[in-house]
Amino acid sequence: MSGLPVTFADIAAAARRIAGHVYRTPVLTSRRLDERFGCRIVFKCENFQRIGAFKARGAHNAVFALAWDAAARGVVTHSSGNHAAALSLAAATRGIPAFIVMPENAPTAKIESVRRLGGQISFCAPTIAAREAAASAIVADRAATLIHPYDDPLVIAGQGTAAMELIEEAGPLDAILAPVGGGGLMGGSAVAARHLLPAIRILATEPARADDAFRSWRAGERSAGPAPDTIADGLRTTLGENGFVLLCALLDDFATVSEEAIAAAMRLVWEVLKIGIEPSAAVPVAALIEGRFDLRGARVGIILSGGNVDLDRLPWQTG
Amino acid sequence: MSGLPVTFADIAAAARRIAGHVYRTPVLTSRRLDERFGCRIVFKCENFQRIGAFKARGAHNAVFALAWDAAARGVVTHSSGNHAAALSLAAATRGIPAFIVMPENAPTAKIESVRRLGGQISFCAPTIAAREAAASAIVADRAATLIHPYDDPLVIAGQGTAAMELIEEAGPLDAILAPVGGGGLMGGSAVAARHLLPAIRILATEPARADDAFRSWRAGERSAGPAPDTIADGLRTTLGENGFVLLCALLDDFATVSEEAIAAAMRLVWEVLKIGIEPSAAVPVAALIEGRFDLRGARVGIILSGGNVDLDRLPWQTG
Repeated sequence: MSGLPVTFADIAAAARRIAGHVYRTPVLTSRRLDERFGCRIVFKCENFQRIGAFKARGAHNAVFALAWDAAARGVVTHSSGNHAAALSLAAATRGIPAFIVMPENAPTAKIESVRRLGGQISFCAPTIAAREAAASAIVADRAATLIHPYDDPLVIAGQGTAAMELIEEAGPLDAILAPVGGGGLMGGSAVAARHLLPAIRILATEPARADDAFRSWRAGERSAGPAPDTIADGLRTTLGENGFVLLCALLDDFATVSEEAIAAAMRLVWEVLKIGIEPSAAVPVAALIEGRFDLRGARVGIILSGGNVDLDRLPWQTG
Repeated sequence: MSGLPVTFADIAAAARRIAGHVYRTPVLTSRRLDERFGCRIVFKCENFQRIGAFKARGAHNAVFALAWDAAARGVVTHSSGNHAAALSLAAATRGIPAFIVMPENAPTAKIESVRRLGGQISFCAPTIAAREAAASAIVADRAATLIHPYDDPLVIAGQGTAAMELIEEAGPLDAILAPVGGGGLMGGSAVAARHLLPAIRILATEPARADDAFRSWRAGERSAGPAPDTIADGLRTTLGENGFVLLCALLDDFATVSEEAIAAAMRLVWEVLKIGIEPSAAVPVAALIEGRFDLRGARVGIILSGGNVDLDRLPWQTG
């Protein structure tokens, strides 16, 4: 496994670095879901993580890995989702500035969330070019450090700590499932799982309507698919280069799932486990609903990636 | 406190009796909610309890307290809500029959839930008289034991174990809040809390649109209020006689809350804690939203009573 952009040593270092700053989230099990799916599932509940998603792990690892002089100049991102909140929180914890570039039309809830966590927001026109230009200007002006939301190796290593904890808690698993957006969570999970349990099946899941990672993995060549159009808003990003390398090296299988199954999975988890998860987090469960993997009798770990949901617009009510 | 229908010794006995059959549910805290309400809150998460509500505690205590010969003849209830599911589960665990009388028009989800847990359902006309008659007939035919859903002292003692665990976990609390329906949870909580922390403030909460317990407590005389009409469906029951005695002896204060506050509280808990709670469980939080108690700087325990929700009909979407 030499030559990969992230190693288990990086994840072990991340775990030490972020301990005390992020939660060791609980795991849940359910006899009812085990009976339904014919396997034994352990859910890692990153919906209970700080800022409500696994992104807190990678952001804290990247921020706390900075040398003090670089750290003092601050960190920058132009992500407007969970990564912006996570980076704001991590920077506040370290006592350094976080500069967050957001499109003018960002939802009020996301703006408020970043503000509450102390992020300094610069608004820009709602295009990728404008966002990247605004972020670059801040990097140039302040010599601040840009922290990529999912392809930075420190971010990937941080995300890998969730799978590490899951395996520590659950013991020997036969398979591990996570969703793929930019590839940070799936890539980090794959590195951790392959090291700790060499025979484990590493199974990626993605919405069929945002399947660029699946296409890239299958073709062995990174390419954007059609414009993503999925309720799993956290997975609309494009697979990163480091994520691509990790997925090609480490995955055993990859399934894409329908929007209907994502909505049904989200609802099922809420009804049975009594926890709130976001559509992206429901994607691995959707793969079980659709029977995409043979997991009969297996011990299965699933990373529920987050719980930030617009409760006014639940997917089973708009369909 | 002698002369009360339930004592702390009963709760301690219940805790021993039900250990291993029900969950010791987790507690959650939230800096964000603490800042919002100006106090330090520890939430006891009975939404994660077996069958999704605290009712599993009382039902297991009542079922496992039966002598073997009485137990073998089975248990009966004509409740159609969480108590029916809880009694079915407790009876199945002990390997005895549970006879559940349900109105013909009971929601399919509730029927399925009882069936899945092994309860033997008898349908009857949808009136209280028909339900009581059907239950009495089963008691007479089979010499089975009727387990009242909230006023049986063993049920009340079982419900009190939630507050006992909360105080064991949270340490010295200044106040404890729970919702009042039939008075089983509130009564049991009050007995446990007063014994373990004599100076604690015991605070009851009830929907203003189902305020028979509040009226009875204030008047010192048990009386039915107007017909209950609240989204907190678990609290539409009438205060029981034993519950009334416990509330009059042990409460420090009692607040009623609006439907709007209940819906807002349910949503707030979902958004911040990422857990699913039912409207009844949101009632104590609604009292904080409406500022009904002076809790500035206090350490506050709140029992979140359950998480069984119809996800098709969320209260903030029908208002």
